[in-house]
Amino acid sequence: MFEKVLVANRGEIAIRIIRACRELGMHSVAVFSEADRDALHVELADEAICIGPPPASESYLKIANVISAAEVADVDAIHPGYGFLAENAHFAEICENCNICFIGPSADNIRRMGDKAAARETMKEAGVPVTPGSDGVLRDQDEALELARAMGYPVLIKAVAGGGGKGMRVAHNDVSLVQGYLTAGSEAERSFGNPDLYMEKYVERARHIEVQVIGDRHGGVVHLGERDCSIQRRHQKLVEEAPSPALTPEQRRELGAAAVRAAQFTGYSSAGTLEFLYDEAAKEFYFMEMNTRIQVEHPVTEQVTGVDIIKEQIRVATGEPLSFSQEEVRIEGHSIEFRVNAEDPQRNFSPSPGRIEWLHFPGGPGVRIDSQAYAGADIPPYYDSMIAKLIVDGRDREEAIARMRRAMDEFTVDGLATTLPLGLRLMADPRFQRGEYHTGFLERFLEDSLPPEE
Amino acid sequence: MFEKVLVANRGEIAIRIIRACRELGMHSVAVFSEADRDALHVELADEAICIGPPPASESYLKIANVISAAEVADVDAIHPGYGFLAENAHFAEICENCNICFIGPSADNIRRMGDKAAARETMKEAGVPVTPGSDGVLRDQDEALELARAMGYPVLIKAVAGGGGKGMRVAHNDVSLVQGYLTAGSEAERSFGNPDLYMEKYVERARHIEVQVIGDRHGGVVHLGERDCSIQRRHQKLVEEAPSPALTPEQRRELGAAAVRAAQFTGYSSAGTLEFLYDEAAKEFYFMEMNTRIQVEHPVTEQVTGVDIIKEQIRVATGEPLSFSQEEVRIEGHSIEFRVNAEDPQRNFSPSPGRIEWLHFPGGPGVRIDSQAYAGADIPPYYDSMIAKLIVDGRDREEAIARMRRAMDEFTVDGLATTLPLGLRLMADPRFQRGEYHTGFLERFLEDSLPPEE
Repeated sequence: MFEKVLVANRGEIAIRIIRACRELGMHSVAVFSEADRDALHVELADEAICIGPPPASESYLKIANVISAAEVADVDAIHPGYGFLAENAHFAEICENCNICFIGPSADNIRRMGDKAAARETMKEAGVPVTPGSDGVLRDQDEALELARAMGYPVLIKAVAGGGGKGMRVAHNDVSLVQGYLTAGSEAERSFGNPDLYMEKYVERARHIEVQVIGDRHGGVVHLGERDCSIQRRHQKLVEEAPSPALTPEQRRELGAAAVRAAQFTGYSSAGTLEFLYDEAAKEFYFMEMNTRIQVEHPVTEQVTGVDIIKEQIRVATGEPLSFSQEEVRIEGHSIEFRVNAEDPQRNFSPSPGRIEWLHFPGGPGVRIDSQAYAGADIPPYYDSMIAKLIVDGRDREEAIARMRRAMDEFTVDGLATTLPLGLRLMADPRFQRGEYHTGFLERFLEDSLPPEE
Repeated sequence: MFEKVLVANRGEIAIRIIRACRELGMHSVAVFSEADRDALHVELADEAICIGPPPASESYLKIANVISAAEVADVDAIHPGYGFLAENAHFAEICENCNICFIGPSADNIRRMGDKAAARETMKEAGVPVTPGSDGVLRDQDEALELARAMGYPVLIKAVAGGGGKGMRVAHNDVSLVQGYLTAGSEAERSFGNPDLYMEKYVERARHIEVQVIGDRHGGVVHLGERDCSIQRRHQKLVEEAPSPALTPEQRRELGAAAVRAAQFTGYSSAGTLEFLYDEAAKEFYFMEMNTRIQVEHPVTEQVTGVDIIKEQIRVATGEPLSFSQEEVRIEGHSIEFRVNAEDPQRNFSPSPGRIEWLHFPGGPGVRIDSQAYAGADIPPYYDSMIAKLIVDGRDREEAIARMRRAMDEFTVDGLATTLPLGLRLMADPRFQRGEYHTGFLERFLEDSLPPEE
């Protein structure tokens, strides 16, 4: 086991990892920026080291500062959380070179899945279905046009180094393709320093369904079922649930088996997620990408399986084999997560940083809160706007929704605008209640339900 | 279903019931004393009605005031919670006479189980083992002496109307028996207006193990497994867990079957608990008493079965059959509850009412909080000193204990002395960790671990 783990992150995920370390009997070391001096992750960790000023590029993203903190604190391992350095293969390599265990997959694994076009090729080799599209990177605009005409519109142009919706365009015809090819390429160059693009068939009215896997360092891989994350706005998830209301048990088994096959094919040895598009009309799954890190929405899977994914991720990083087999994984009940963001849905979701004047979390049965918030806390403007994850579970989806509505009613945040009022409207929507939604649902819901902007 | 339910209680259990009502789509009506104007249950209910000043005898225990509030609010049903009027057969009868459903068993059931000597006789008839002892009420001191000598000391003298340790004495010889008979009788007369006593063999080093049952109004009865509540001080439970670390699966089945038999024999139709003494050396169970109400510690059973006991209790009160069968009940993982009381263990557990200056609840996976507390709340001196129930669960007992320690570390209450520091010491004790404890354990632990009083 590790004696000491540095948590190279902030906010709720840093707290989540600190909690896991404490339960495993490991000391935790927090790092923080000058804007986070009074943050809860600093309070809860056994030690805390300041690594520079905001913004993140001067602290949480600064590899030299993080590694220095790790060496000063003399840790055995670094957990990167999500975002920041979590999918930076270079950082993973530096950790290993400094004899510090990187709690995540190998640098090679991160790199292979980080290049989205190469990941598609790998998945094809592993026998996992991918959307029809280009074989790797598009050579030029002419190849893009030729391929789009052959597959038929609409198509999606995506940056190989992409993420978070950047460097991505939908094209419905030759004109928008040419335009999209140029703008996506320059956006990708600006955002990721890499203009390379690839193309996929664009599946309309699809669901975003992802499978949680965990592999150990002895070739063992299990999946923990799927999450449905189709409630998104501009590729940012807002609601996630497990299991997906759209899958049959047979589809669940098939998708899980495909995810395990893919992870085994790549020798994957940590917690990871395979994201799929599900074409509900055609009943077809297509691999989108693999996230080689823990995800924001991992708790819904924890609630329905009883597995503590972060603890298991740390255990396998120490070299231990998985603590359970695929046969022992049981999906029981239903869980939903809602992201409480300090954003104002009435003002185009603009961030609303500031002081939380008063705060009261919901409690009682089936309610879990993962949050860095407290009454009197200042939410700095520099980082992600999520202030809490509200996670509920119930015997079935109906009970989980009733519980979510009850918990949202109880949840009080004074001083900031949040996504909670939107969440209440969403949970009351009959289409959501019937499970009839896709990745375009939320944006249409917002158009229909929000008053026009002032 | 009911449209409107009055919650005839305060504190965390009132909130627990209000939450259940909201999830079931029923309106809730809180009642409150003048000391509870700013209480959280008043805030969370749909309506709230003041029923008088403190202490409880002037409000929460005043049947006329509660019934008036129910009639003013025009409710269909009253949930009594625990304590106060929950085991008052007369109150249950008045509710029925006023055409208001009493969410609990029949008045007859409450009465039969409320007389502890009669309950023993009923259980014998139902074929449930009871401790050797008197057949009903002791006629006089001579009969008590004769019986004690025949059974062998030590014996327990108990008030038939007893509860909470009042009117109860252990006798180790003839002298202490005579003394105990007199003092228990006068104490019972004072406390309950009924001096009648009965006698039981006193089982030393026993465990307190209880079984949760729920019956519907159509003869259906299920059990939800057991809770081990042996960590007590002066018959007040402090830690409860499910399942019991002392039982084999075979014993669990037998005990569950005995509890269901007893509930069926008496036509029991609500949530209830059969309390047993378990003589670990002899591997024998003895019925102690049945609580005809929801109990403080019901959440540990909810966590390991996934059943919302309060919602099920309300459902069966509407006349619906049980929503699940015995075969569908699965006990998964392990759950522990700790009672956070505003009491000072360093000063003989004297209550420490006052203002909560600052409060932070633990969160994250496997942590549930049922509490009326908030930062700035005043804890009045008139009522029970419990300010929160900290409930954790894990895949196994070891994980649950690690989580409890982690959660207790995070739990911050400023302004009041609480039982939390004692809880932390208890969770760190190797005997507790091995599950080796009995009803005398906590008092010995306190003698050994607390510094002498000043």
